[in-house]
Amino acid sequence: MFNVAIIGGSGYTGGELLRLLKQHPHVNVTTVTSKRSAGKSVSNLFPNLKDCQLIFEPLKIKNVVKKADLFFLCLPHKTSQEAVAYLHKAGKKVIDLSADYRLKDAAAYKKWYETRHMFPALLKKAVYGLPEIYRNKIKHASIIANPGCYPVSAILGLVPIMKNSLIDSDSIIIDSKSGVSGAGRNPTQPLMFSEANESVKAYAITTHRHTPEIEQELGFLSKKKIKIIFTPHLIPMDRGILSTIYVKPKEKIKLPHVQKTYQNFYAKEPFVRVLKDGEYPNTKGVKGSNYCDVSVFLDQHNHKRQTLIIVTAIDNLLKGASGQAMHNMNIMYGFDETAGLTTLSPCP
Amino acid sequence: MFNVAIIGGSGYTGGELLRLLKQHPHVNVTTVTSKRSAGKSVSNLFPNLKDCQLIFEPLKIKNVVKKADLFFLCLPHKTSQEAVAYLHKAGKKVIDLSADYRLKDAAAYKKWYETRHMFPALLKKAVYGLPEIYRNKIKHASIIANPGCYPVSAILGLVPIMKNSLIDSDSIIIDSKSGVSGAGRNPTQPLMFSEANESVKAYAITTHRHTPEIEQELGFLSKKKIKIIFTPHLIPMDRGILSTIYVKPKEKIKLPHVQKTYQNFYAKEPFVRVLKDGEYPNTKGVKGSNYCDVSVFLDQHNHKRQTLIIVTAIDNLLKGASGQAMHNMNIMYGFDETAGLTTLSPCP
Amino acid sequence: MFNVAIIGGSGYTGGELLRLLKQHPHVNVTTVTSKRSAGKSVSNLFPNLKDCQLIFEPLKIKNVVKKADLFFLCLPHKTSQEAVAYLHKAGKKVIDLSADYRLKDAAAYKKWYETRHMFPALLKKAVYGLPEIYRNKIKHASIIANPGCYPVSAILGLVPIMKNSLIDSDSIIIDSKSGVSGAGRNPTQPLMFSEANESVKAYAITTHRHTPEIEQELGFLSKKKIKIIFTPHLIPMDRGILSTIYVKPKEKIKLPHVQKTYQNFYAKEPFVRVLKDGEYPNTKGVKGSNYCDVSVFLDQHNHKRQTLIIVTAIDNLLKGASGQAMHNMNIMYGFDETAGLTTLSPCP
Amino acid sequence: MFNVAIIGGSGYTGGELLRLLKQHPHVNVTTVTSKRSAGKSVSNLFPNLKDCQLIFEPLKIKNVVKKADLFFLCLPHKTSQEAVAYLHKAGKKVIDLSADYRLKDAAAYKKWYETRHMFPALLKKAVYGLPEIYRNKIKHASIIANPGCYPVSAILGLVPIMKNSLIDSDSIIIDSKSGVSGAGRNPTQPLMFSEANESVKAYAITTHRHTPEIEQELGFLSKKKIKIIFTPHLIPMDRGILSTIYVKPKEKIKLPHVQKTYQNFYAKEPFVRVLKDGEYPNTKGVKGSNYCDVSVFLDQHNHKRQTLIIVTAIDNLLKGASGQAMHNMNIMYGFDETAGLTTLSPCP
Repeated sequence: MFNVAIIGGSGYTGGELLRLLKQHPHVNVTTVTSKRSAGKSVSNLFPNLKDCQLIFEPLKIKNVVKKADLFFLCLPHKTSQEAVAYLHKAGKKVIDLSADYRLKDAAAYKKWYETRHMFPALLKKAVYGLPEIYRNKIKHASIIANPGCYPVSAILGLVPIMKNSLIDSDSIIIDSKSGVSGAGRNPTQPLMFSEANESVKAYAITTHRHTPEIEQELGFLSKKKIKIIFTPHLIPMDRGILSTIYVKPKEKIKLPHVQKTYQNFYAKEPFVRVLKDGEYPNTKGVKGSNYCDVSVFLDQHNHKRQTLIIVTAIDNLLKGASGQAMHNMNIMYGFDETAGLTTLSPCP
Repeated sequence: MFNVAIIGGSGYTGGELLRLLKQHPHVNVTTVTSKRSAGKSVSNLFPNLKDCQLIFEPLKIKNVVKKADLFFLCLPHKTSQEAVAYLHKAGKKVIDLSADYRLKDAAAYKKWYETRHMFPALLKKAVYGLPEIYRNKIKHASIIANPGCYPVSAILGLVPIMKNSLIDSDSIIIDSKSGVSGAGRNPTQPLMFSEANESVKAYAITTHRHTPEIEQELGFLSKKKIKIIFTPHLIPMDRGILSTIYVKPKEKIKLPHVQKTYQNFYAKEPFVRVLKDGEYPNTKGVKGSNYCDVSVFLDQHNHKRQTLIIVTAIDNLLKGASGQAMHNMNIMYGFDETAGLTTLSPCP
Repeated sequence: MFNVAIIGGSGYTGGELLRLLKQHPHVNVTTVTSKRSAGKSVSNLFPNLKDCQLIFEPLKIKNVVKKADLFFLCLPHKTSQEAVAYLHKAGKKVIDLSADYRLKDAAAYKKWYETRHMFPALLKKAVYGLPEIYRNKIKHASIIANPGCYPVSAILGLVPIMKNSLIDSDSIIIDSKSGVSGAGRNPTQPLMFSEANESVKAYAITTHRHTPEIEQELGFLSKKKIKIIFTPHLIPMDRGILSTIYVKPKEKIKLPHVQKTYQNFYAKEPFVRVLKDGEYPNTKGVKGSNYCDVSVFLDQHNHKRQTLIIVTAIDNLLKGASGQAMHNMNIMYGFDETAGLTTLSPCP
Repeated sequence: MFNVAIIGGSGYTGGELLRLLKQHPHVNVTTVTSKRSAGKSVSNLFPNLKDCQLIFEPLKIKNVVKKADLFFLCLPHKTSQEAVAYLHKAGKKVIDLSADYRLKDAAAYKKWYETRHMFPALLKKAVYGLPEIYRNKIKHASIIANPGCYPVSAILGLVPIMKNSLIDSDSIIIDSKSGVSGAGRNPTQPLMFSEANESVKAYAITTHRHTPEIEQELGFLSKKKIKIIFTPHLIPMDRGILSTIYVKPKEKIKLPHVQKTYQNFYAKEPFVRVLKDGEYPNTKGVKGSNYCDVSVFLDQHNHKRQTLIIVTAIDNLLKGASGQAMHNMNIMYGFDETAGLTTLSPCP
């Protein structure tokens, strides 16, 4: 058993981390902090954790630095920067669920997050926590930049064909649909039940901050600059992201070959399931799990140009956040990769 | 006042037609028929029509042919063919909400609906009931092929730029999200509350029957063969369709120019609203109305190639079905086009 | 045409009032004010009112007092007191949707709303705006205290048997289930989609402020002090209240007799529908309408004591608030009582 | 490890049993049968069990009797009778999730289920599977009649005060609100998304079959005939039951005393949580768990008569069905009572 702490744990990703970590065979959550909920008990804020005895401590990192070896940071973007640096200096390992260490390019960070990155050296040290790409680096990382929810759903849908250079990298369109928990737990009018319910909308077209994150990783994969079209949508359900991805093959391809490429690439991955030909992923099938379901379709009724349509489904709070974070921890500490992540979720 | 009848009126489009027609200043619904609900009262099947005195009559068209001048047909695809032909022969006007007279090409009909079209001559006579394109033909039509719900949301998002030849017609991708009522009222397991709730999925990728309908109309508009990529999705809400449409401009364009093109094209249309720059359509904004809201965005962060992103929102049962049908009736009979279609809908 | 104004109109009841009033044949909305939304356009706040040209004005009553003859007040409880007094003094008619003038007893008001009532003389003048009881007084009223949403659903379920002294008035239990819009539009965490969705809870047991309001009116009806048990619940839907009411008959009764009592009592009421024997009200059947559906059941399988179970369904924002307010206006001004309230609502 | 089978496992309770049993440390599911889904794979029917290798076998009990020691029966009421008898004769243990062995009185069974019970001797042998009352009998039972979902939520809310004779047993009113999965997985129109969504209704007033079950168990507890008022409601969410229970104390009581009574009674129960004074159970707090949350309130603002209001929340598919069944199995076989039932469920 070793000790972990959660910093900024009163939101949805904090709650799911608490839940997962409490069920992990090898770790002990010693501390959870929260700015707005300091002094309140975890059981009050999370109805599914009624038996949890922890109390939220105030958000003073100095006070809690000795309480754990590994820190999960669920702080808002921008405020996470410094916390990571402080903990790193103190010799602690960090898994940062904010966006602050995801973009390798400090200039890109400044452009998209409208604030300067003060620790560019640490940016280089940080490892992007997507095991399907960076497993080996994660093993030895001291700072993990845990991926954004949309990027996980987008990148996992594209890795196999990007790696194999099968597609025209200028043709990528990602149309994503997310449940409302993805927007966080701070109460604002658009997130109220009576506003979000019974409606669907697109938002942040051309401006969503997950765009450069997806482009960076696809760029690394294909070793060139990648620009994508990314459109997020908000749909009336608690959790889940479905991404429908459209790409043009470089040359004429056959669907079974592409499907085989996916199956081979993910053959040993514990959390990616390539569905059978014709099977559709849906978010209910991954709700409460750390799986990413992927299915590949080929539209060739336009004889001039084929289009690959890749559909992925994840639980935005698990494979898209807290489950992913725990998977990273498992890799960092040499635990079984699936430790604490194998419980089947209720259905419906 | 003139007399109208609804054939096959126990589903959602039948219910909405009944509601709209009962509120229309110039028409009188004399008859509504239903196969499965013959003998039942309308008030039992539609909770919002508790004060309606009509009883569903059996589905024998012969028995009801004298009861009206205009017939709305809400029959399943394939069974509508013959009913239209019979009524037409009897000198009646018909607005057919099924797909049977939408495809002008009998061979295409056979391919997509897996049954032969027995009245190819009538196919030619039938007018595709989208007033924004065919207003003049609708005025004199005796058979209206009322458009499918997805096609309305897709075509209205593309007409202005297709007409003006602004885009690469091989680049069209339509990603649509529909509420569950779009799948009809026949009980099947996937449409049960506990199955469809809290989930989102794509379906019928490359095989949805609205594909050739969209392609036909876009082809007529641009005077060449059009092939599109169309992906429908089912999302957990009662009604509404949001379509996110991706197209490549032929040449470098500026957003205000495109927006102006849309505003000009729809300037006099009573039921299409081009939103202001940066405003997002959502289905809650059109729920219960006959409006189609359209907004245009331009993604140009890929310097090689711009992408236009057009978002449209309609109520699938109104602008996507029954409201559209009544709009067509208004045009056919010289009523004010908005007669019976101006009530503001409740919100939230 | 005469002029009306809405004070504090950026919430859900304000939005529904705007919608209804804009469709009313005889009135003109000249002004709508809002504290938090002053300067914003109505079309921005209410997606269903996109074509509305009004802009929210600041909440200075002095500035708008000349703009209308009748004022609808959608202010929070406690702040409405003074506004009513000011407008009344200026010779204006007022329909107050807050609770400030509902309780006739200033002491009760102080106890339940924890603030002193500064205008006890006006309290006496104000008429409780439930036409099914106070129609004649409403005709001549200058201040209407528009009923609370739960009280409407409760009182209308009990009037006929209270008036006819059929029941043990100590036995009344009201178990109410409300959609989330009933809790208003101010964003708080419990009203967020991801919190309220997929859950049901009771709240404010023994402490809900609608309790004394229901007790007052039932007391007036039966001419004695009435104490009830009232339990509100929050359920995951946008709008609607279903109240299930349990009462013991004084003496052995027969169901058809009770049903007849309800039918007779409500025979001429335009907005109360007594359902047929065995028929169940549901909120979908009244959504978007000003109806209250009522059905009466008798449980007599306990031979010692019968229990009457009365179920009522209303739309909390219409019969429970804004529709009721407009009905009151119609009565006050001698319009047809149903003017502006007859549109059929979409379904599903 | 010992072998269990599920008979009739393609519905929601079957799916949840499969999920739970697959995670149980000591059992092995050898067989699952289904009438309508024979030949299909479990992974197709349950999106959360995509990795399950089982195939539904046809519903011939003879063919599967040798495959297990313990059988869970998820058959429809009436058809379960014979299956239980057959398996019992073959020396197998049975946990029957149908209602067929719950009513001890064959005459009552006939009255409420409109069919004769052919195995009255077995009725006597069967143990009602509510551990909080019958733990010792369950240990030695060969046939468990697993309780209905509503009865669990009702009885657990009343046991402590019935046992202690604190209340007037003629005063019990149970108002229950259930998610849609409680109505099963057979597709019918009222259970379709677009029908059940955004609505609430009462149903089966005075006629619901769980009434005699609740009355029987409360009667056993208080050693006299009990008649209750029970009203079930359907609300738009996947799972969960909230029961609001109203009872009159025999004599004047104090709330802390009643709360203490509940705390004492349930002190050692692993799956009942008595909430703190003033805390409200909600179904989100028990979703995905085997807990029953209970909270007690006292309304005494009517000086003549106090009313106790007890609110309970359960997950209808777990504590109300499959979780309860597995708890019974744990007791029967001497496993840790909470084995396989301790996973924390996702939230929101």
